[in-house]
Amino acid sequence: MTTQDGADAVTGDLAAEPKRPQRPAQRTDLFLGDLSVGQIFGSATYQIGVAEIKRFAGEFDPQPFHLDEAEAARSLFSGLAASGWHTAAITMRLLVGSVRISGGIVGAGMDVLRWPKPVRPGDTLRLECEVLEVRPSTSHPDRGLTKVRTTTLNQHGETVQVLVVNLVVPRRPRDEAGACPLAPAQPRSQ
Amino acid sequence: MTTQDGADAVTGDLAAEPKRPQRPAQRTDLFLGDLSVGQIFGSATYQIGVAEIKRFAGEFDPQPFHLDEAEAARSLFSGLAASGWHTAAITMRLLVGSVRISGGIVGAGMDVLRWPKPVRPGDTLRLECEVLEVRPSTSHPDRGLTKVRTTTLNQHGETVQVLVVNLVVPRRPRDEAGACPLAPAQPRSQ
Repeated sequence: MTTQDGADAVTGDLAAEPKRPQRPAQRTDLFLGDLSVGQIFGSATYQIGVAEIKRFAGEFDPQPFHLDEAEAARSLFSGLAASGWHTAAITMRLLVGSVRISGGIVGAGMDVLRWPKPVRPGDTLRLECEVLEVRPSTSHPDRGLTKVRTTTLNQHGETVQVLVVNLVVPRRPRDEAGACPLAPAQPRSQ
Repeated sequence: MTTQDGADAVTGDLAAEPKRPQRPAQRTDLFLGDLSVGQIFGSATYQIGVAEIKRFAGEFDPQPFHLDEAEAARSLFSGLAASGWHTAAITMRLLVGSVRISGGIVGAGMDVLRWPKPVRPGDTLRLECEVLEVRPSTSHPDRGLTKVRTTTLNQHGETVQVLVVNLVVPRRPRDEAGACPLAPAQPRSQ
């Protein structure tokens, strides 16, 4: 699906299921021991429409290059572009459906957040998430931390956002069947 | 205004002017030469309501601790909390109205983004923005970069978000009256 394919027709109906899943999403809740360095998770896709870009920008980032095609054409972006915070929010939506950590996705700080290319009306976004680190917490024996790089790509395979985030991940309870409670896949010393 | 003060009554009507500006916002467009290390900008305030927290989370961060009071009470957050991406988006809204850079606020990468405390329904947020660096671009003579730390505070003075962001800032055109076109306030070597 390209920017020519009816950019206005589908404007990010987040209540609906995404239309073209890239890979099967993770369907069971993940504990620290289920994660290992180098694991890669895909995501569903999300098409962003021009009305949605303007709505988000009107509420949170009211600048001409996110709101008005003519002014955007004369700006540094050379055309209408989504707010980077909109891209970040869509990325979170895709991440919640993709990397299903037990107890939810709880951030413990970001290392990187950048937007190398603008997101344009009609773009179809998806994620590639790579596990970079997995380590038990030294202060909380019931949890650990994982560092994940989420790369948000458009339909041309171009990177529109890179986010490296540290997530809190619970360890599997000792009494859970089949668990290896205190041995994360790739432990690292603190 | 505290969380007891009608958290549901005002749910972030972003079209309206904020009700209690902390300090006068910057009203003229800023060029690189207008910025200097140590400058501090305040912002208007923004009260966030429970309905708005759930609406944003339902669209972009559909996790129980952002959507359901009872489940949130049992979560790591011990109560309903706004999505960090919602806090980031509100911060952008306040920043656009506060630090009026000529041509708009265009990010060139984040150094820090973290959420030390949850944002709760009814919280009233404001920014303190400090200029940390100002330097001319070595590759683009018409612009420079500034590093700004935006601290988002609640009504108790507690920090709910820290964002350190690098912004692209144009240099004042040579023909503009009163300008000192090529002498930024605090130039630094590359």
